[in-house]
Amino acid sequence: MALKVGRGALAPPFLVMDVIAAANARAQSLAPGEPGIIRMEVGQPGTGAPRGAAEAAIAALRAGAPMGYTEAFGLPSLRARIARHYAEKYGHAAAPAQVAVTVGASGAFPLAFLAAFDRGDEVAMAAPFYPPYANILVALGMVPKLLPADAGTNFQPTLAMLEAMDPPPAGLIIASPCNPAGTMLAPEDLAAIARWCDAKGVRLISDEIYHGLSWGRTAEATAAAFSPSAIVVNSFSKYFSMTGWRIGWLLLPQDLVRPVECLAQNMVISAPHIAQVAAEAAMDCVEECEANRARYARSRAALLAAMPGAGFNRMAPADGAFYLWADVGHLTNDSTEFCARMLAEAGIAATPGVDFDRARGARYVRFSYCGPEEDMAAAPGRLRRWLGR
Amino acid sequence: MALKVGRGALAPPFLVMDVIAAANARAQSLAPGEPGIIRMEVGQPGTGAPRGAAEAAIAALRAGAPMGYTEAFGLPSLRARIARHYAEKYGHAAAPAQVAVTVGASGAFPLAFLAAFDRGDEVAMAAPFYPPYANILVALGMVPKLLPADAGTNFQPTLAMLEAMDPPPAGLIIASPCNPAGTMLAPEDLAAIARWCDAKGVRLISDEIYHGLSWGRTAEATAAAFSPSAIVVNSFSKYFSMTGWRIGWLLLPQDLVRPVECLAQNMVISAPHIAQVAAEAAMDCVEECEANRARYARSRAALLAAMPGAGFNRMAPADGAFYLWADVGHLTNDSTEFCARMLAEAGIAATPGVDFDRARGARYVRFSYCGPEEDMAAAPGRLRRWLGR
Repeated sequence: MALKVGRGALAPPFLVMDVIAAANARAQSLAPGEPGIIRMEVGQPGTGAPRGAAEAAIAALRAGAPMGYTEAFGLPSLRARIARHYAEKYGHAAAPAQVAVTVGASGAFPLAFLAAFDRGDEVAMAAPFYPPYANILVALGMVPKLLPADAGTNFQPTLAMLEAMDPPPAGLIIASPCNPAGTMLAPEDLAAIARWCDAKGVRLISDEIYHGLSWGRTAEATAAAFSPSAIVVNSFSKYFSMTGWRIGWLLLPQDLVRPVECLAQNMVISAPHIAQVAAEAAMDCVEECEANRARYARSRAALLAAMPGAGFNRMAPADGAFYLWADVGHLTNDSTEFCARMLAEAGIAATPGVDFDRARGARYVRFSYCGPEEDMAAAPGRLRRWLGR
Repeated sequence: MALKVGRGALAPPFLVMDVIAAANARAQSLAPGEPGIIRMEVGQPGTGAPRGAAEAAIAALRAGAPMGYTEAFGLPSLRARIARHYAEKYGHAAAPAQVAVTVGASGAFPLAFLAAFDRGDEVAMAAPFYPPYANILVALGMVPKLLPADAGTNFQPTLAMLEAMDPPPAGLIIASPCNPAGTMLAPEDLAAIARWCDAKGVRLISDEIYHGLSWGRTAEATAAAFSPSAIVVNSFSKYFSMTGWRIGWLLLPQDLVRPVECLAQNMVISAPHIAQVAAEAAMDCVEECEANRARYARSRAALLAAMPGAGFNRMAPADGAFYLWADVGHLTNDSTEFCARMLAEAGIAATPGVDFDRARGARYVRFSYCGPEEDMAAAPGRLRRWLGR
């Protein structure tokens, strides 16, 4: 007989994956001599792990390391190295015992949500947001609650929005820098939100995976410095350019260390051993990571200078991450159709905003600028010709 | 203020992790010249990945492969290779599209459970069982339901047990070979259970991660051959000796392909890229995997011959996996205390049965024989002397 499918599986797909597939197909169908597709849809650096990270992995394999399970929270040396990173970068004293190495940030979210929330709990976030936040919450029976953020608040939540929630939500997810908006919370605003959450019993989850990639107008701060109850999520995927290695971490508040450890023992066992070895080495590959960062900075500057002339003149402040969040309401009221035409006619792949904001995304497009620098430099010209400007 | 902790985090720890920690501590406290600790608590081969798998990973890294995200279900070549494995090993035609590469079997279970079940759904299993089955179900709000299996049914479920359930459960988890019991379902019994589940609308989840490691008395069969609705879970951790690489797979029924893909896009993004490369190569490392297998077979034979004389004469049929499930009811009524003393006094680490069977586990111990062959050969003598036989 036909068997049922669980309601947890009704989570919508992460549409950017479909956009990537369409761009791949378009690239393969190009006639000889036709200019290539410029990939501005992807959220991953085209560069691989820093060379020193790859070399550490090679050396461990050459030495015949058995690469068995590590402890559920990861190699002690990596946890200590991550704890040191908090001291060095933020002046924040984090204990290695609070660090849980995870299977990317993706693997961190279900652990954090299950440890902090119950089914039916409301978890607030501003839109646009990284779609898996809401999709994972829904899959686990929790309830995403959208805050009325908009261009006026840089698409970030404000204390006033939180205070207006009655009752307060069980949790709040923030992302600074934000994917897809590229905006940031100023340290004083982050501090105020973190302190309010702690005082009100609202569990704050601070997604800090784009730390290391901000452009100087707003300082990077960690929520852990302002709240003893905040959960911090981070990853080696972005600044360290290690997406497919699937390695990230949680910095946990004291009360969630053992609950998350029990969940991880059962649901994960451990993060990939070889990725842990590589990640620890990556943290010392400053030069290569900074060279990537400088490339993003140049691409960002070139795009910010040329995109307005190409017709894209309403951008959220591009303070961090490697995204431009463009309001294209003057060009279309259907960003999905707009992006499909842009791919077919201009040879540029970008992600329609509906993936990140179901209500208003039809008038937004996310452009990623982590791709090859020459492609990023060429993009505005193509867009200008396409739009006939 | 003190923040709440989610009920999902009340999942008990996976106790074997604590046993491993105790054995590590005991090993480090040994005086010079004292005989080493024999490790029979671990569920992972001490050997690493097959050499060909490690070499494939090294070659990819040397070539500068960026190791980005793969598609959510994995590299097409690996999915095709796994599909071919079903044709070659079982004569079962599986489509690559049904194969989802996962972050180990651990990463497969939450995807399968969320896709197949709803909160409150009952999922049946025989005891003893792999503790994360129940712990993950509980974390997701589902309800484990224990079947009255015992030594008389080789600790496996029977059709009669299932038919006695009114109403039938939403799902059934089976494991053949079984961790910890080492027992198997005969192919005709597996077929009958799989067909009954399909007919009654009970979602069958067949854990086949110990396939490749059985000792000839019972043939290995895949549930997918007998039911179009069964979910099969498998892994590269055991036969292919790749635990810490975190790589496994699901063979999915047609109706769950898209639901699991949506969940994976959100909760995982992809399994570790480098582990996928290594795993594909591992599938052709027949000689090395078979050499490991032969070693387990020799250790098993030596233990089965000598353990009765050491006082362990009530074993479940050790037909598969690399475990002995020993009834120690004549030696203790507290297997946790018994294992602690065995570690302290005989220098042998094993896992108390309470981890796998909360009701009856106080009279069982799980011995793993995947460790070094000379250790396995030495174990019965130590146990005999310890018990004064």
